[in-house]
Amino acid sequence: MNYCSQCAAPVALRIPEGDDRPRHQCQTCGQVHYQNPRIITGALLTTGDQVLLCRRAIAPRQGYWTLPAGFMENGEGADAGALRESWEEARAQGTLDGLYTAFSLPHINQLYLFFRGTLDPVAYAAGPESEAVALYAADALPWDALAFRAVEKTLRYWLEDRRAGAFPTRHETLEADPRFR
Amino acid sequence: MNYCSQCAAPVALRIPEGDDRPRHQCQTCGQVHYQNPRIITGALLTTGDQVLLCRRAIAPRQGYWTLPAGFMENGEGADAGALRESWEEARAQGTLDGLYTAFSLPHINQLYLFFRGTLDPVAYAAGPESEAVALYAADALPWDALAFRAVEKTLRYWLEDRRAGAFPTRHETLEADPRFR
Repeated sequence: MNYCSQCAAPVALRIPEGDDRPRHQCQTCGQVHYQNPRIITGALLTTGDQVLLCRRAIAPRQGYWTLPAGFMENGEGADAGALRESWEEARAQGTLDGLYTAFSLPHINQLYLFFRGTLDPVAYAAGPESEAVALYAADALPWDALAFRAVEKTLRYWLEDRRAGAFPTRHETLEADPRFR
Repeated sequence: MNYCSQCAAPVALRIPEGDDRPRHQCQTCGQVHYQNPRIITGALLTTGDQVLLCRRAIAPRQGYWTLPAGFMENGEGADAGALRESWEEARAQGTLDGLYTAFSLPHINQLYLFFRGTLDPVAYAAGPESEAVALYAADALPWDALAFRAVEKTLRYWLEDRRAGAFPTRHETLEADPRFR
């Protein structure tokens, strides 16, 4: 950020009065331009013992498998965003059971949310951001070709929780993991 | 948003190529300036049958009671942010049990997260954004003087869940509520 989006004057990185950390602040009009974490919302859609995955057609992590997910938009709920992304990336529809996993990723200023649900109808196709979309059986997941750590974690919990027969909602803060670069 | 924060040229609200909704895009350098929901993270800190509340000293909803909460910052996890806000607003420390409630508020582009935890030590004081901080007993909560719907909902669930003896994590999308204006 170089310039004020309100008045076009240069911004400086400084600690505003009453604040405790540096912010981009306009040197002319005084406007503070806060930068905050962004939310990625997605869905774990299953049918029987199979889960819907997308192979990414775009950076980052092109060619790797992910649960359908993307940036939550203004004006939508996280649940609606998860279904929107499922449609955009996998041409999939589903019924959500609720929030399943939440992961804070402070090193990249993101919060991931995954909702658990049922693929309904059992139909899917690659959207423009996917090279392929497929149903993977729980015992044959592509562990060595997953796109993101939050996806890997969510799938591991899903396997554990299926065995236990209960799907509690979890939040975890994750550190950077060199396997996903 | 009037100007590009990268190059200071005017921005226009238009649908970028390959996108499906209007964005602020620079008419000179082409940069798209996405605007996404912000995260408010906070804590329901309890000791016995009492819960810690803050009376807001600032707008919006000055004079009304809230759970300690505020905007999640870049570089922190949502749980760390909840504890940071508890300290800033209520000079309170605690041990978190996990994520408790999540509320999408699409009409104001926010996602609220509340973590449940124990106040430890049982000590508190008003921080600069609070007029007062107090422990309220579960059967004497200030229902008519709460600041935000997400706070009211979280406290209602806490009462129900205490009776049931289990505290499942929930996500809900809430519409605008004229009681909280």
